[in-house]
This record gives sequence, C-alpha cells and structure tokens, in this order.
Amino acid sequence: MSATRRPGPSTRVRVIELAGDQRVQHEDRLATEEPLEVRISTPGAAARRLGITMRTPGHDFELAAGWLVHEGITRPGDIETVRYCTDVQLRPEQEFNVVTVDLRRPPLLEPEARLVTAACGVCGRDTVTEALSTGGRTGAGPTVARDVVRSLPAALRAEQAGFERTGGLHAAGLFEADGSRVLVREDVGRHNAVDKAVGARYLAGGPVPPVLVLSGRIGFELVQKAVVAGVAVVVAVGAPSSLAVQLATEAGLTVVGFTREDRCVVYSGADRIGV
Amino acid sequence: MSATRRPGPSTRVRVIELAGDQRVQHEDRLATEEPLEVRISTPGAAARRLGITMRTPGHDFELAAGWLVHEGITRPGDIETVRYCTDVQLRPEQEFNVVTVDLRRPPLLEPEARLVTAACGVCGRDTVTEALSTGGRTGAGPTVARDVVRSLPAALRAEQAGFERTGGLHAAGLFEADGSRVLVREDVGRHNAVDKAVGARYLAGGPVPPVLVLSGRIGFELVQKAVVAGVAVVVAVGAPSSLAVQLATEAGLTVVGFTREDRCVVYSGADRIGV
Repeated sequence: MSATRRPGPSTRVRVIELAGDQRVQHEDRLATEEPLEVRISTPGAAARRLGITMRTPGHDFELAAGWLVHEGITRPGDIETVRYCTDVQLRPEQEFNVVTVDLRRPPLLEPEARLVTAACGVCGRDTVTEALSTGGRTGAGPTVARDVVRSLPAALRAEQAGFERTGGLHAAGLFEADGSRVLVREDVGRHNAVDKAVGARYLAGGPVPPVLVLSGRIGFELVQKAVVAGVAVVVAVGAPSSLAVQLATEAGLTVVGFTREDRCVVYSGADRIGV
Repeated sequence: MSATRRPGPSTRVRVIELAGDQRVQHEDRLATEEPLEVRISTPGAAARRLGITMRTPGHDFELAAGWLVHEGITRPGDIETVRYCTDVQLRPEQEFNVVTVDLRRPPLLEPEARLVTAACGVCGRDTVTEALSTGGRTGAGPTVARDVVRSLPAALRAEQAGFERTGGLHAAGLFEADGSRVLVREDVGRHNAVDKAVGARYLAGGPVPPVLVLSGRIGFELVQKAVVAGVAVVVAVGAPSSLAVQLATEAGLTVVGFTREDRCVVYSGADRIGV
C-alpha cells in the first residue's frame, strides 16, 4: 500500500482467498486506520498536544470535538473552531492527521489532572461515582416504542456503507424517539464512532437526539460518553458489560442490548421502553 | 448489582427481555468489567503507577506481564514477580484491582518517553516504522496447513466459556502450527485478551507458540503485540485494518482474516499457509 496525501475511509489491497480447494487472488478493501493527533489552543496560550487516537479518516473535526467534550475537557459552546494543522514541521502525509481545536476559554479540566483523577478509580464503584460527578444524571427523556427499538439496528445497518465495503468498521447513530434517523458515523474504533456522531451535533450547535444506536457491544466508556452527551436511551446489537449497566442504572440511562427485529434485552431504565 | 470482594468473570443481573409481544423478567449474566491499575517496582526505587485498563477480572498477573512486554517497557526475563497490592490506602474492594510487577532492572523505556515517542507517529508510515524499531521482524516460522487455519476459530470458540455465558467477551488463543491448542484467554477488551494469553507464556518462561487466534477484528495495535511476541501467524474471525496489514507486511507476519470452516482471506505472508 502506498501513502496517499489524504487517506479515504477504505484502502485497496491485493489478497489471496482460500475458498474450499481454490486459491484466488483478488482486490479487497480494508477499513483505513491512521493516527489522529488532537491539539487544543486557548486564548493567550500556545497550542498543545493532548493525545493520539487510531481512527478511520473522515469527520475528524467531529471526532476531536466529541472526544474533548466526552472527556470533560471542554463544553460544546466553548469550541470556537477546529482545523487541520499546517505546522511547518509536518510533512504533507501528516497534515491531515493533526487537528487543532480552538477553545474560547481554558479547559474545564487539565488533561494531566484527568489522568490523575482516573487513577483514583481502582474499583468499579469509584469509577461509577467519578463518572457521575462529571456526567450527572440523564433527564426524563422520551418513551421509545419497543417496535421502534427493535427496528434501530437495521436502520443503522442501512447507513453502514463502510462496513458493507470492508467488514471492519463499527457504527454509531443518533435517532429521534420515533425512530427517525438523524446521522450515522463509522470508524474502526467503537468509541471514535460515538465521538464523531455526537461531536457532529456539538459542532452544529444543535441538541443531541435522545437515542444512540451502536453496532457492537456496550462498555463502561461508551455509557460514560452517552451520559455526558445527555442521550436517554442506548440501543446496541451486542452485549453490555457489568460496569456499563451499573453506571447506566445510577445515571438513569436506558440500556438495551442484543437488539434484533424480534427481541431485545433491557438492562436498565425499562420505564422508557413503551409497549 | 452489589460489589463483591473479588469479582468473577461474569456478573448476575435481572433483565427484561422483550421477545415478540412478550415481556419476561429473568436473570442474565454480563461480562464483568473492572479497572486494573498496573504498577512497577524496580530495585532501589519506589513502586509507581503506570496506567489503568478496564478489564475482566481473572489472569490479572498475565495481563500485566503481557502489557508491559508488548508496550516495550520490559522483557519477559526481567519480570521477577507479579502480586496484588496490599497497600494500606486501598480498601478491600480495590485490592484485587491493583497489581505490582517487580522488575529485576530498570524499564527499557520510561512510560513517559513512550508517550512522547508515540506522539511522533502522526501518519501510518511513521507509526509502522516506530513499531518495527521496537518489535523487529518476525522469524521464518512454520507453515500452517490451510485446513488447520480454517479450523482454528471453531477450536477457539470451544474454549470461550465466558462468551457462551455472556456474549460479551473477546478471546485470544495460542496454538501450535499443527492446530493443537496451548491456551485461550477471554476479556471484555480484545487487547487485554492477547496480553493475557501471551503474558501467561512470559510468566511460565516458555516459548510463545507460533499461531495467535483472535475472535474479532485485527487492528494495528494487535499486530504490534503479535510482532513483539514473536508469533508468526495471526488468524482472526474478523477483518484487519489497513495499518494492521501494512505493519504485518513490513514485519513479515502472516495475517489471515474472515476465517470460516470453508474459507479465509490471506492479507500478508501467504507463503506460510500450506496447501
């Protein structure tokens, strides 16, 4: 594979398929994975590097905005602009892998402080308590009909163009309570897909729709992002973890897993699922 | 859910299943997710905290050992012991979530330095070059018959007891070139499952078997771990990413994806797959 100046969401490769006794060479498409460095710049201070994530290129500004808000570093309204860096030290192939987020005021939490805080949570109970202290509790939120809930994975799948091509991308989608789709984002990382989807709403300045749909499993960190984002219902194709359900229960978030057209399992907040 | 002193790999919860028009309450089992803090202690220096990972309790010493070696912080032979902390500041429910690894000599790489190094790799090419500089190239390794390759996911699945119970755990297994199973480990995190499986061999002082089998997809970091561990062939049920294949190709590692009983796709190192 040769580097292109701006990589797309999928990458072509030559592969060998071993089907039965056959050996067939053909072209295949892989989900693109590239590092993204996120920097923040605040009034009167030099831009500084916060971290690197491995992601699928595309919707990078939304990813950076979502990540910063979900980590508790800033609020949506404090993001002024997001841009690719044109630092003289960056080579052309690096340029689209570095974004700077310009904040209107200093971060709510110093990234270093965040690491120290996280280090205090060395049991599930602490971790949940800490997450609640930054995320708060989910509001009342709407009721979602059970048939709508069970139709959401298929509605998400209909928008997973990258998954169709590569089989290697996760998706996160935002939906209204009546099941209408607002937007869907894909990424090699499950967490990145959520940051991109919700980050798109932060940058647009609009409200975050109440239902988040996930193509995979639901871990603690995904529930944490949902709580910070203020969604009311998380619907997933896969299983939740113990700590994900514990946080969802304490935060008042509805979590539904193993969602298929004819069944689903409600782990918390069942009062939001209508007959 | 109430906290138990030493959490097991799965956790019981009450759920509501919505199947067709029915609404059934029953008990369900979730994959347990809890934080694990890893500390290192070196001769003449106080123990210090390296990081926290969300993991499924069980095989914690193997997880810590595998993680340290795969991150380039130490070599298997430099690990003297791994133990749970009994720090007076830890509450009982925290005790089994903190492990200390006693090293015979100072770390090869300071963890802070590792972060800075990683921050240099802001394009795929840099990232691959850096990974090669720490991991080196895979040796010649054995040939694995195509029928053996295609039988490995089923052999892995036969040992995924936690997945059977919860649907929420990934697995990594080490196998010999003839398809015989050495060991299998499960975790909510795909990366943790690999650290546990390979870490078990590091702690046992034995060689790492040549074939690594994964229940999910293959991202860059999983190939990086495989290269450091010195395995020759990675066989996965899911898709690889672009950067995973790029690193595997440059490191001389065989990567096989979408592996089923009747077919599989070879992305790199096809010369190790026998007819």
